[in-house]
Amino acid sequence: MIVAVIGDGSCSVETARLAEEVGRLLAENGATLVCGGLGGVMEAACRGAKQAAGLTIGVLPGCERRGANPYVDIPIVTGMREARNIIVVSSGQAVIAVGGRFGTLSEIAHALKLGIPVVGLGSWQLSKEGWDEAGGMVPAADPADAVQKALALAIE
Amino acid sequence: MIVAVIGDGSCSVETARLAEEVGRLLAENGATLVCGGLGGVMEAACRGAKQAAGLTIGVLPGCERRGANPYVDIPIVTGMREARNIIVVSSGQAVIAVGGRFGTLSEIAHALKLGIPVVGLGSWQLSKEGWDEAGGMVPAADPADAVQKALALAIE
Amino acid sequence: MIVAVIGDGSCSVETARLAEEVGRLLAENGATLVCGGLGGVMEAACRGAKQAAGLTIGVLPGCERRGANPYVDIPIVTGMREARNIIVVSSGQAVIAVGGRFGTLSEIAHALKLGIPVVGLGSWQLSKEGWDEAGGMVPAADPADAVQKALALAIE
Amino acid sequence: MIVAVIGDGSCSVETARLAEEVGRLLAENGATLVCGGLGGVMEAACRGAKQAAGLTIGVLPGCERRGANPYVDIPIVTGMREARNIIVVSSGQAVIAVGGRFGTLSEIAHALKLGIPVVGLGSWQLSKEGWDEAGGMVPAADPADAVQKALALAIE
Repeated sequence: MIVAVIGDGSCSVETARLAEEVGRLLAENGATLVCGGLGGVMEAACRGAKQAAGLTIGVLPGCERRGANPYVDIPIVTGMREARNIIVVSSGQAVIAVGGRFGTLSEIAHALKLGIPVVGLGSWQLSKEGWDEAGGMVPAADPADAVQKALALAIE
Repeated sequence: MIVAVIGDGSCSVETARLAEEVGRLLAENGATLVCGGLGGVMEAACRGAKQAAGLTIGVLPGCERRGANPYVDIPIVTGMREARNIIVVSSGQAVIAVGGRFGTLSEIAHALKLGIPVVGLGSWQLSKEGWDEAGGMVPAADPADAVQKALALAIE
Repeated sequence: MIVAVIGDGSCSVETARLAEEVGRLLAENGATLVCGGLGGVMEAACRGAKQAAGLTIGVLPGCERRGANPYVDIPIVTGMREARNIIVVSSGQAVIAVGGRFGTLSEIAHALKLGIPVVGLGSWQLSKEGWDEAGGMVPAADPADAVQKALALAIE
Repeated sequence: MIVAVIGDGSCSVETARLAEEVGRLLAENGATLVCGGLGGVMEAACRGAKQAAGLTIGVLPGCERRGANPYVDIPIVTGMREARNIIVVSSGQAVIAVGGRFGTLSEIAHALKLGIPVVGLGSWQLSKEGWDEAGGMVPAADPADAVQKALALAIE
């Protein structure tokens, strides 16, 4: 089982705490974590995963493996900047969004377009004039709820 | 001046009418149109542009130039599926979103992340728990308003 | 008709002269030129095309439209660095390689893999232990020969 | 240490035997294997790595994780077809090419452009009119020689 964790490259202490807990719980449940490999939410989630001896993959926007945060086991070097966002979510069987700004929103949109379930923890709420397409994103109350929902909804 | 027009590959007659009007007005104002090159909003916008003898570029997700709609002058063949979305918006000096679903949402998010102004015509409304990041997207009342705002906000 | 011209971002005066002649002859034959949009062979080919009032497309590796050489009419902004190489050749109905180093070699290989004819002018010669796969690359004697062969071999 | 193994998606029994041996020796030396995740050389190398309990990463061209060969531990799903080639080599600290056709040639060229050492086992020989740029590719006599050279030349 591989789960993508997405969120901003810089974040508050509280958001980092949530992301770290998500990472730890994923690893405790035997899931491999894939993320964008940088700081903020990505680093916190990887740090949490390593606390529980999980495997962490970082799909990097730059062209240097050294751009990865220190908790990434396997840096995947794309050199494609933001275009790597779609690889992050495509490689997960489910996605957990922790907070996030526009980069995270692009990942949520790509995932929902591809039919990959997205669980949100303090993340975007989507609406559109005249009709509702937000059904694809599932809100979570806390990290344990987010991980449980992601593992339950994960595609094969 | 190059403006990106984004929206769904299949759309209602009314949305197509809006997109066609956007395309026509862009061409009348001397702007080149870049889009994803497929049907729906993309095709309607290109058709409108050609009515006013504009130049149209289609950045295709597939690997066949024949995948472009008949109003695309220059098909750019990426073979990168959804990853081509970021190229569409990056190539515009402003973006006009007409309606749209999740693919369009990913393009809006990529554009806002990159600092490219986005004008919405019956498109997504963005909000996020606890804070507001939707300032980057400008609503328009009709096609003329959308084109006027896009040309006024366009980056160099 | 769209033809890709590929080659190094810095080149000798003689190679630039060949590329400029290729660009001019393509435009005189009504072909649109697509290239990587930077300097060297790319700039020389675009300059030649503009001398004959041709249309030039530059598929840029960076994320700034200002990265294009001054003879590019339509900058396509990818932000994908070397991954944009495949878009350059995929968008051509034939490819002309003028000189070139490793980046050009990657484009030749991508084109031949995709079944797009490649004409070489002072460019790579390919061989492989035990068998010959170089049939896909056609040598040219001079710019006129290169353009004539590219137009004759171009796919639909 | 991460080493990329590249080669064709279909290959002879003898080439598969070489690739399997390369994969096994990499794993015995503690290296993680990254490849394109499909059949032929890629599958043989992954099978060899798993015989020695190594970790295998497959950077897939398609958009289905099920497209990976059965010896891939971590499928990275790109949906970018041939554009994923550059990610395969960029993610390695060294590259071993076993045989290979045009797709492999594009990967060799991308690696040499990026300064990543490439060791060839029955693979392409590169030459160019007037000057020699082939210094970047190191020939190997057999799988043990290829692995030893790749580990010795690997960048940080």
